[in-house]
Amino acid sequence: MSDLTELTVAAEKLDAADELAALRERFVLDDAVYLDGNSLGALPANVPGAVADVVHRQWGELRIRSWDESGWWTAPERIGDRIAPLVGAAPGQIVVGDSTSVNVFKALVAAVRMADDGEDRTTGGEVRTADGEDRTTGGVRHEMTAGVRDEILVDATTFPTDGYIAESAARLTGRTLRPVTPAEVPDALSSRTAAVLLNHVDYRTGRLHDLPALTAAIHDAGAYAVWDLCHSAGALPVGLDEHGVDLAVGCTYKYLNGGPGSPAYLYVRRALQPRFDSPLPGWNSHAEPFGMSREYHPTTGAGRGRVGTPDILSMLALEAALEVWEGVSIDAVRAKSLALTDFFLTCVASYVPEGQVESLTPIPHSERGSQIALRCPQAAEVMKHLIAQGVIGDFRHPDVLRFGFTPLYVGFADVERAARVLANTLKSLT
Amino acid sequence: MSDLTELTVAAEKLDAADELAALRERFVLDDAVYLDGNSLGALPANVPGAVADVVHRQWGELRIRSWDESGWWTAPERIGDRIAPLVGAAPGQIVVGDSTSVNVFKALVAAVRMADDGEDRTTGGEVRTADGEDRTTGGVRHEMTAGVRDEILVDATTFPTDGYIAESAARLTGRTLRPVTPAEVPDALSSRTAAVLLNHVDYRTGRLHDLPALTAAIHDAGAYAVWDLCHSAGALPVGLDEHGVDLAVGCTYKYLNGGPGSPAYLYVRRALQPRFDSPLPGWNSHAEPFGMSREYHPTTGAGRGRVGTPDILSMLALEAALEVWEGVSIDAVRAKSLALTDFFLTCVASYVPEGQVESLTPIPHSERGSQIALRCPQAAEVMKHLIAQGVIGDFRHPDVLRFGFTPLYVGFADVERAARVLANTLKSLT
Repeated sequence: MSDLTELTVAAEKLDAADELAALRERFVLDDAVYLDGNSLGALPANVPGAVADVVHRQWGELRIRSWDESGWWTAPERIGDRIAPLVGAAPGQIVVGDSTSVNVFKALVAAVRMADDGEDRTTGGEVRTADGEDRTTGGVRHEMTAGVRDEILVDATTFPTDGYIAESAARLTGRTLRPVTPAEVPDALSSRTAAVLLNHVDYRTGRLHDLPALTAAIHDAGAYAVWDLCHSAGALPVGLDEHGVDLAVGCTYKYLNGGPGSPAYLYVRRALQPRFDSPLPGWNSHAEPFGMSREYHPTTGAGRGRVGTPDILSMLALEAALEVWEGVSIDAVRAKSLALTDFFLTCVASYVPEGQVESLTPIPHSERGSQIALRCPQAAEVMKHLIAQGVIGDFRHPDVLRFGFTPLYVGFADVERAARVLANTLKSLT
Repeated sequence: MSDLTELTVAAEKLDAADELAALRERFVLDDAVYLDGNSLGALPANVPGAVADVVHRQWGELRIRSWDESGWWTAPERIGDRIAPLVGAAPGQIVVGDSTSVNVFKALVAAVRMADDGEDRTTGGEVRTADGEDRTTGGVRHEMTAGVRDEILVDATTFPTDGYIAESAARLTGRTLRPVTPAEVPDALSSRTAAVLLNHVDYRTGRLHDLPALTAAIHDAGAYAVWDLCHSAGALPVGLDEHGVDLAVGCTYKYLNGGPGSPAYLYVRRALQPRFDSPLPGWNSHAEPFGMSREYHPTTGAGRGRVGTPDILSMLALEAALEVWEGVSIDAVRAKSLALTDFFLTCVASYVPEGQVESLTPIPHSERGSQIALRCPQAAEVMKHLIAQGVIGDFRHPDVLRFGFTPLYVGFADVERAARVLANTLKSLT
């Protein structure tokens, strides 16, 4: 009980000193401890009003005029620019739309084409037809002639969809897909590597991978780096521009609180934009979308990543959700995130008898995202009990309790309570 | 002036006899004549409340639990089944999600793979790897070995995005894309044809193409028919099952009133579902999406067309919007649609001096969708004046005035007023 008192007091002190504590008021929350913001971020308080305006006034009253007057048409780039500072990108390099899976497809096929187009990987140059051959006669031929860079490396520990989509991208571009763990990437890279798809933070273990070093190694091999930021954006600094990342994708419904299934985003480094040759060249990425031309001429800039008509309700809900970041430093978010996960590990170590749970999340800060994954027998059952007691995390097959810590609305007293309820639950179940 | 009185009286009589007239109350409308429902359908009156519930209660209160408890996870198939009767499909063949462009890509690549998989086009059979060769060694090879069916035909008059996406599908599958008008399709079909992508109604002229006859001709050639229903679904009977269409796509923000950029849908005929081999095999189409397996095993049924996490806000707005169809017969909608466009042509012929406008829309009912396209000099300027006077149509480059007639909320007095304002505008501008 001395530990309990001690940790409760510690939590109080940490909360009192927390410079981000007031941000919690920007969200709709209840008495539960919500540690599932790494799956679905909580509702920002300003979103319902913004959505009601989109529905009633913009759609209901202005109708078709809203494409211009309410800024619907330009939303994908505008909202991309709001995400940009959170991931260390200058404006004009991010476009919002489609799902993460679809953006992985765009990014990976585009990266393979860049590796194939004969340009030095660091310079620009216009998109060219991949082969110059006559395509109106003869049998079935692949778009690309045999090249040297015939491999795509993919994070073998990736969220499944990235692997499935990478397999499809490899199949459609005639490449071979090679799954490797991020640690194996440096040795697996060669002059055969076209592109590498990696996760910044592992969705299961919460391990943070070394984006700067891995990107540099990929570049040294002359290949293109595609990063999936789903579990890092909004939780820690990413530094896309600083580290020269080529392409990146991410969802917006986790730490960015955009709402269930809100549109994902695609980052294309400015220097590579003229060479971004989309496998999904929809009319929204045309230089003159209303010219209704039969020939496709892509626009310049990040808009090349657009495809079809943007999903306005979800997109403008996301835009409102991003307002909660006003005046918030991502470095302060990262500092609090590490303090929260440190404190959770301390509380768990103190409350839970040794051997009952095992953390899959690395201890070094440089290797930790914003979640703690605990391996534990009967994890599915344990999580049900936690949820019934107002501690909301999630279960990942087969034996993982996953707790996400969103620094914008999770406090230290929440963390202490979660660990305490976990300990009591484990005690009651054994 | 006698014409004016006569047509005003005629409009009154037609409105009085209109069995669908009361449906207008299911929408939020003002005093304008809204003839742009073929671009963005008007707001159904029940949508704002439904959306508010999704935001406040389902997301804000239930949060992550809503994936089960609010039916979020099953929404793509459930809403697909709501669209099904409107396009003549039995349940279990339509899935909602992504944009029309993305669905064209899925459908066309899948159709090419069906043409290539060696199965008879009318039978089922499991998806197989397209080649059995070792893919871990050697240079870059295409997924498919040289086959006979090396051509994709695409409607040369198509909405541009379909053509751009078809070009990409051809490029990625090593096929040749051949643009032909729908009238040229029968002669262009051959044993080289893998798939044909056609529009049911031409977005520009409003011409309705002969889906049953063209589908039969495509099948006679042993090829697969992919239909784009953007400008027909919700305006006229489609009969997908009856006519044996293989794959179809459509948007939901025109005559289905789903809201700006609301998710599109994909139809895959039941017999072909086991052979539907998606180029975008995201985790949502996995047989066990939460098994987090590294290997992709597609689910059965229409769900094979799913990709990433569904966009819930937009999707559930669409679900509410589809409630306006309760008790509405699509045959009655078609009858009123033809009566509206007939009456508009009558009013225009009566009010507008000959030679000032020319209808691009066919006169025979069998060739007419639910819009009238008038070619006219200074069309952009004319449309601005119409809109300023509360007659909302749209302009299509370079010289087309486009008027869409949504039978659920457009009446005959609206039509008479639109023609009268058009005549006065043309008079004032010359």
